[in-house]
Amino acid sequence: MKVYVIGLGLIGGSLALDIKKAYPEAVLCGMDANEKHVEEALLMGLISHAAVLDDLKDADWVIVAVPVNTLSEILPDILNYIGENTIVFDAGSTKVAICKSVENHLRRRNFIATHPIAGTEFSGPSAAIHGLFSGKTNIICEVEKTAFKLQEKALELFKALGMRIRYMDPVSHDTHIAYVSHLSHISSFMLGKTVIEKEKDERDIFDMAGSGFASTVRLAKSSPTTWASIFKENKSNVSQALQQYIANLQNFQQLLENDDYNGMFEEMENTNRIKNILNGIN
Amino acid sequence: MKVYVIGLGLIGGSLALDIKKAYPEAVLCGMDANEKHVEEALLMGLISHAAVLDDLKDADWVIVAVPVNTLSEILPDILNYIGENTIVFDAGSTKVAICKSVENHLRRRNFIATHPIAGTEFSGPSAAIHGLFSGKTNIICEVEKTAFKLQEKALELFKALGMRIRYMDPVSHDTHIAYVSHLSHISSFMLGKTVIEKEKDERDIFDMAGSGFASTVRLAKSSPTTWASIFKENKSNVSQALQQYIANLQNFQQLLENDDYNGMFEEMENTNRIKNILNGIN
Repeated sequence: MKVYVIGLGLIGGSLALDIKKAYPEAVLCGMDANEKHVEEALLMGLISHAAVLDDLKDADWVIVAVPVNTLSEILPDILNYIGENTIVFDAGSTKVAICKSVENHLRRRNFIATHPIAGTEFSGPSAAIHGLFSGKTNIICEVEKTAFKLQEKALELFKALGMRIRYMDPVSHDTHIAYVSHLSHISSFMLGKTVIEKEKDERDIFDMAGSGFASTVRLAKSSPTTWASIFKENKSNVSQALQQYIANLQNFQQLLENDDYNGMFEEMENTNRIKNILNGIN
Repeated sequence: MKVYVIGLGLIGGSLALDIKKAYPEAVLCGMDANEKHVEEALLMGLISHAAVLDDLKDADWVIVAVPVNTLSEILPDILNYIGENTIVFDAGSTKVAICKSVENHLRRRNFIATHPIAGTEFSGPSAAIHGLFSGKTNIICEVEKTAFKLQEKALELFKALGMRIRYMDPVSHDTHIAYVSHLSHISSFMLGKTVIEKEKDERDIFDMAGSGFASTVRLAKSSPTTWASIFKENKSNVSQALQQYIANLQNFQQLLENDDYNGMFEEMENTNRIKNILNGIN
């Protein structure tokens, strides 16, 4: 079983680790636009060989885990290189543009569009960890456009990695993910910015920060490359989510300015329902 | 050693647990405006006796861990009841109004104004946990207004609980804590609200939420009673922090709308510095 991983960062690297564990006979090969990442991945044993596009004709699997705007650009070309029974899947956090980029490709049926909802705030090959996908949701879009036999194989592999599957159309995916994932990243980055700006000359102040701040600002450690790319690809949904978030913050500020503590209490009490909703998310 | 805990929630309850562990001979007594909390604290063994204000004359220690707006109201009265060598400390998340409420009190020198920066998103006696204060910062305000011998004893107790001490004036405390703690709570509550509003009819969507969302929205589980009270007490600082946060979000949205991906990248890259700043916060 020959597996090619294109993009040896947190997601590609972690997939390599988990596949090697689930399929010890697998031969892992990799590529990355950044040569240092390839060297690092070889040293770390994420992959055993460096590869080039020409090698893909022998691939059983090709995993494309590059920033999403690059993904829509290179995916059609990757499909040009693969063999008849190669399965290609991506791990992009947006799905509309990626699905569109290959909609009329002769090898469309070799591609399965997926978004494994898993990650950490770290990036690069050294961020790869075992078991990242265990118990996580993997969203598959336009499953009907993938050859049935290849779907079956892909589902087997996802199951071996411990993922649970949800099916969704790309438009719904991109709308909802803007709220439950992309918006969190902006809220966290801007929280970090606001506090750093205020406290830039007073490093001691961060002694005052507790675990609450650390948790809320954790995503502000994430890769700017990954996230600028995601916001670009999902611009209108992200902008709409951000608009609603800002309106809610302005409303809360108005309640505060009006000394409407009952109003603030109610806003918070209504949102406490998130407790039940979050049950089951790690 | 007789310890009276007034307010048997997360903070008061956790202090009771840690003090009993550090000083096994301590007799823990408690009061709470909510009678059920007293019963629960007795059942859980957080305290061994229910108490009334008249008992405080025998107290070695009185810990006041009630919502901050109640705290400024009841603290002067509590000082009326204590004995000559009783040490009273609070655990309020704001300090200006609390310090002001007792500035001219005859027993001011028995009081030490503290803010242990520790907590979880849970509340009530059942939220009490062992070791909550270990390794955490405890901010002491206006230390010079506490009798020196009582300061010494208080420092010993805080050390026994594993806390590290920082000194700060109440005005600086309230300004900075608005940024590193209070703002995080609003950003998290409003993130939760925005997502719940959007997805109210589509519970399945939360299958798409990953650990990033869970982390960012964690504080939205916090107690509305505690936090409405904090925002009330620290209104002007919180409003200013919120204003700057909203301005930063609006600026980010503008970059997105203008397709300025380099601008977004830079905003995020600059904020990545939070990695170093957060080192050491659990």
